[in-house]
Amino acid sequence: MGDDARPILVVGSVALDAVHTPTESASEVLGGAASYFCLSASMFAPVRLVAVVGEDFPAAHRRLLESRPVDLTGLQVRPGKTFRWTARYSGVRLEDRETLDTQLNVFKDFHPVLPDAYRDSKVVFLANIQPELQLEVLEQVPEAEFIACDTMKLWLDTARPGLERLFKRVDCVMVNDEEAVQFSGKRFLPSAARVILSYGPRVVIIKRGENGSLLFTRDRVFLAPAHPLETVRDPTGAGDAFAGALLGAVARAGHGGDDVLRRGMLYGSVLGSLAVEDFSVRRIIDAHMGDIEARLSNLVDMISLDGTRAK
Amino acid sequence: MGDDARPILVVGSVALDAVHTPTESASEVLGGAASYFCLSASMFAPVRLVAVVGEDFPAAHRRLLESRPVDLTGLQVRPGKTFRWTARYSGVRLEDRETLDTQLNVFKDFHPVLPDAYRDSKVVFLANIQPELQLEVLEQVPEAEFIACDTMKLWLDTARPGLERLFKRVDCVMVNDEEAVQFSGKRFLPSAARVILSYGPRVVIIKRGENGSLLFTRDRVFLAPAHPLETVRDPTGAGDAFAGALLGAVARAGHGGDDVLRRGMLYGSVLGSLAVEDFSVRRIIDAHMGDIEARLSNLVDMISLDGTRAK
Repeated sequence: MGDDARPILVVGSVALDAVHTPTESASEVLGGAASYFCLSASMFAPVRLVAVVGEDFPAAHRRLLESRPVDLTGLQVRPGKTFRWTARYSGVRLEDRETLDTQLNVFKDFHPVLPDAYRDSKVVFLANIQPELQLEVLEQVPEAEFIACDTMKLWLDTARPGLERLFKRVDCVMVNDEEAVQFSGKRFLPSAARVILSYGPRVVIIKRGENGSLLFTRDRVFLAPAHPLETVRDPTGAGDAFAGALLGAVARAGHGGDDVLRRGMLYGSVLGSLAVEDFSVRRIIDAHMGDIEARLSNLVDMISLDGTRAK
Repeated sequence: MGDDARPILVVGSVALDAVHTPTESASEVLGGAASYFCLSASMFAPVRLVAVVGEDFPAAHRRLLESRPVDLTGLQVRPGKTFRWTARYSGVRLEDRETLDTQLNVFKDFHPVLPDAYRDSKVVFLANIQPELQLEVLEQVPEAEFIACDTMKLWLDTARPGLERLFKRVDCVMVNDEEAVQFSGKRFLPSAARVILSYGPRVVIIKRGENGSLLFTRDRVFLAPAHPLETVRDPTGAGDAFAGALLGAVARAGHGGDDVLRRGMLYGSVLGSLAVEDFSVRRIIDAHMGDIEARLSNLVDMISLDGTRAK
């Protein structure tokens, strides 16, 4: 990690997940968008977490986060149970997901409150929560220079006006392809991205899982491939690990220029590919920066037009 | 077209297609893998066609092929009707295909017979026909230096031994992702490609439609994105137009080195993206080399890690 990397603020969910695949299961494992984001981003820069857990949140999970450069001052602990989420994956490469159960618990009344020490955050990630809560965060980061947000289909269906206000105020909107099509009313991704860009963000990132992701700015497009997988054990959290690496690259560079974003997309693909290789955040935790750089340099070679491999 | 480009031999189907989409239809239009291949490849190098049509094959379609550098000496005209194929596309981006009718007609008894003048062909494309017929071609091209073959699920199901013999004797196997998974028994594409490579070809290309295509050699991988689409009118023939451009690039360069193949994959994406923008081969015919080079340079920019666009 660069000594001058700026801290990244993330606001989102910390959960206890139960995940089932045709051959394996795991339960009460660390989950939630902010958890995946934290552990990915903290490979690149210090992270400041704002989230809520219940009194039942396992000490081992807290210690895991504390073992990384993750500031937990903003992690609220409330009476009651931690947010729980249960899902089942199927399909040849576990590409089909069915959510079996969602228990919001203490997350239901969550409001993001930033500790004073977080208010100078320059790089901010608003993970998928209600747009109104994402907007509350914006009031508390007057010095922010690069704000990215994620969302989900639920908010497109139920909170579109809030989303539109949010999109006007962030630098980077991240959505998946179905959300981009639904929000824009356009069938093709370049047109869909142009509609979202028209709301104001400088950058739109459309995530397509194992099919890679696309980065749109006003006058350029970058097509980031997913890192080809050799195995998948648990697809949960790939998108949030992707976002963590992308914001990590921005924080480390100190700016969100096109070169940083393009390389950041590839770091995102690398962390996304790691995330799915084991349950929960296990594989991300096991990775060293050397593993990440090696996988990145493979991926760079896989999009190079040179006839011989760079050494 | 370079003056020293080598001619490309293609053996495959020429058909009359009927295509239905939710909003449009076309019938008795020029179709068949070899037609798309010819018109794409002939942007880069002269093409030698071996195929069969019936006595009903429209003079206008023949004239269209003749208007390009396509040698029709090997186009057999047999008593009876031309191969006919009818399909319907559906889905948001017409990604779902249903074959409604296939009438083999004169194609049923087709055997590829090369005119003497074709026997010195160096670059050869065996479009999707029975593996036994593809093998018959190999006996007639003793000087071939780069042979690529396509196939389809039907032959995986019914003619696997022939396919295995074919794969041992070609330089480049092209399959789609489902075929690669079925043939190899491997869920993930890198493992699937390694299985196919183990039969002998130096190159395996796995096509994934709007999700791009992958080029595998023994020690490297290239991930070619599809060109992002703004419209789709008729998805037929994209894969054959892709193959035409790839082999065209090889013929133009005079060899199938890694740099030629990588750039050829992008030319393939460009011709594939053109093919789907109108019914039949219309959009390919309308394209000038300037259009193709402009779209290629856009695509190169979309995978570049440079922060500023090359002029």
